[in-house]
Amino acid sequence: MLSSGGQGRLARRDFLGGLALGAGGLVAQAAEPLAARMPDSMKTLGGADLPYGQPSHHEQRVQRQLSSAAGFAVWRTPLQTQRGIITPSGLHFAVHHNGLPDIAPEQHVLMVHGLVHKPLRFDLQRLMRYPMVSRVHFLECAGNSAANALSPLPVKQTLGEIAGEVSCSEWTGVPLSYLLHEAGLREGAQWVVAEGADGGSHSRSLPLQALLKDAMVALYQNGERLRPSQGYPMRLFMPGWEGNVNVKWLHRLEVTDAPAHTKDESGLYTQVLADGRIERFAFHMDVKSVITHPSGQQTMPEPRGFFEIAGLAWSGHGRIARVDVSADGGRSWMTAQLHGPALDRAFTRFTLPWRWDGRKAVLMSRATDEHGRTQPLRSAWKSRYASHSFNHYNAVQAWGIDADGRVENVYA
Amino acid sequence: MLSSGGQGRLARRDFLGGLALGAGGLVAQAAEPLAARMPDSMKTLGGADLPYGQPSHHEQRVQRQLSSAAGFAVWRTPLQTQRGIITPSGLHFAVHHNGLPDIAPEQHVLMVHGLVHKPLRFDLQRLMRYPMVSRVHFLECAGNSAANALSPLPVKQTLGEIAGEVSCSEWTGVPLSYLLHEAGLREGAQWVVAEGADGGSHSRSLPLQALLKDAMVALYQNGERLRPSQGYPMRLFMPGWEGNVNVKWLHRLEVTDAPAHTKDESGLYTQVLADGRIERFAFHMDVKSVITHPSGQQTMPEPRGFFEIAGLAWSGHGRIARVDVSADGGRSWMTAQLHGPALDRAFTRFTLPWRWDGRKAVLMSRATDEHGRTQPLRSAWKSRYASHSFNHYNAVQAWGIDADGRVENVYA
Repeated sequence: MLSSGGQGRLARRDFLGGLALGAGGLVAQAAEPLAARMPDSMKTLGGADLPYGQPSHHEQRVQRQLSSAAGFAVWRTPLQTQRGIITPSGLHFAVHHNGLPDIAPEQHVLMVHGLVHKPLRFDLQRLMRYPMVSRVHFLECAGNSAANALSPLPVKQTLGEIAGEVSCSEWTGVPLSYLLHEAGLREGAQWVVAEGADGGSHSRSLPLQALLKDAMVALYQNGERLRPSQGYPMRLFMPGWEGNVNVKWLHRLEVTDAPAHTKDESGLYTQVLADGRIERFAFHMDVKSVITHPSGQQTMPEPRGFFEIAGLAWSGHGRIARVDVSADGGRSWMTAQLHGPALDRAFTRFTLPWRWDGRKAVLMSRATDEHGRTQPLRSAWKSRYASHSFNHYNAVQAWGIDADGRVENVYA
Repeated sequence: MLSSGGQGRLARRDFLGGLALGAGGLVAQAAEPLAARMPDSMKTLGGADLPYGQPSHHEQRVQRQLSSAAGFAVWRTPLQTQRGIITPSGLHFAVHHNGLPDIAPEQHVLMVHGLVHKPLRFDLQRLMRYPMVSRVHFLECAGNSAANALSPLPVKQTLGEIAGEVSCSEWTGVPLSYLLHEAGLREGAQWVVAEGADGGSHSRSLPLQALLKDAMVALYQNGERLRPSQGYPMRLFMPGWEGNVNVKWLHRLEVTDAPAHTKDESGLYTQVLADGRIERFAFHMDVKSVITHPSGQQTMPEPRGFFEIAGLAWSGHGRIARVDVSADGGRSWMTAQLHGPALDRAFTRFTLPWRWDGRKAVLMSRATDEHGRTQPLRSAWKSRYASHSFNHYNAVQAWGIDADGRVENVYA
């Protein structure tokens, strides 16, 4: 049991009992006023709907957060507003190195060439005839949570602003192996250089064997064609690997015997270790979790009482096996409930009923995947890398709650 | 094996081999022209993104189809454009009896009263503190595919126009049992009358025990707050049951000892059987499937050759166990591949590689759920009901393909 400050774990039954004791539904009057039984919306015919529906105008504040520097735009998912595991496509995070190309689908071509017996070109009509697979996977930018890695003092921001470069969707596309096998791999084929049709020809070298096993050319996201910011009309998708290798606006796959050391992989997406060596081609995003409710810049809805802690966990290596939660800054931990379906390399929801006694508390979550990989504390993560490194930050996220109920990012 | 007309099932390997023999990628020139390697989008900086992303303007034709009669609006999902199992929220089907109310969330109240010890009122802030669950479920209107039930000749429409009153989303909300238990059920409690805050106070009586087991007050759909057309700020959600009982804009739950026989259940959603008796309170949507690719009003992309048949299956009673596909109007059947995750009362994808010989063909799919329930042929369904009955139509959907490759709705 959690011992500090009486911030104990509670069974669901206790949670509901607690709500009934004052924090739950308000007791109605014996005779409800007529106005309560007949709100205005029941007295008039409603308005018209749209052919393509939109969120309520009452929810306009739920948007992606933009940060932009020298043409480099980062749109972050407001994870603190998300429930469930699917991120709405309109709120999916996106990083654009060179803006958003507008590509007419009938003019787009995907080339497969290099160390193949038969170089091939695919237009969309051809590609659409191939067998497709659908899979729910998270996607995370290598640089997600960079502020926690770099800032000496914890930034006072929302969860989305801190760690919103991760989202989860159902992706549908053609397994890349079909296209590569049709082209016919020649001896010596070991890598594939994937290039996007954007203004900076974003390109990455990826090991062939891993692509043959897991990669798809994604055409759909959450049941409809990819959004422009996700690479319309097509992107590479490699489950569990850092976002930028999932090349958007994909138009060229060149099979090679060695990595190309493109600007995007030799510069931006390498990382300096603490001993000065360079980590290259570190593709997998590691196990990670965040508490979404409550989280940074929120205020607890009551001065004390019963709350459900809820969060998201994911791992680029497989399924989430377990999430532990602390309410006392890591001195004691309780295992949270995982909600199904706990899919491979996808968001997994966890919850834990909790009673807040109104005193200072520090909430933390620590996920462990099916391979036993678990999240380090910030200090352990920092000790592995040079002080200016920030990619692949997966340390435990901590939220401090002060006596006024204010929730803020803290290091613990 | 399918025998008629050589329209045989194929292994995936054959499918790809077939594509490689002429229907797949086009062989590229030894030296690709520079224009192919450098499309215009690679020569300029791209445009700006939006805080709430939208589909590509090249996809504007992908919309819901509206039919409307006397204030009764039906928006149908274009299932023929969907891949995967998640329907984008903007394309989710909706039936509005009385237009779309615009409800300010801070003014909305949910009342729980009737045969309870303590009548309760919940505003959104209170309700949001309760433990929530997330589940992927289909939702289908009782009247889906009505034209197939009623029209003596098959209507020549798209799949969405014919059978698009069904969609599938991840729904998140508070289990209704929490609220009912908090209010305290009194002796004699057997039914719950759920009422919406729309202009017609849409209301349905539902059996209490089933609600306690499965119902939620849904607040989120696909990771964000409900869309207005799905009942913002809250709706009842009862997995597998006909759409209209999932009362939108939910504002009142009255616990009773008997059904209220509201206008919506005594009139619209009863059904006359062949012998003249009336079927009431038939809540479950039965097992059903549709081939989405190819489907009505489409044209086969090549005069003959290899195609992947793809479709969706669902059952209001549980999981899909099996889907059989025929290419010869039901004379022979082959078992399709089911794609995971095969969730309870959710869309399940099925596919079957197929070689079309260019002659007339009739494609059909027949789903079977984990309880052994399977789809009837149209004639069998019609024989059960009066000739003017159309609710709960779940007969096998057939698509005729003519020698020109035109795909049309047929009865088989």
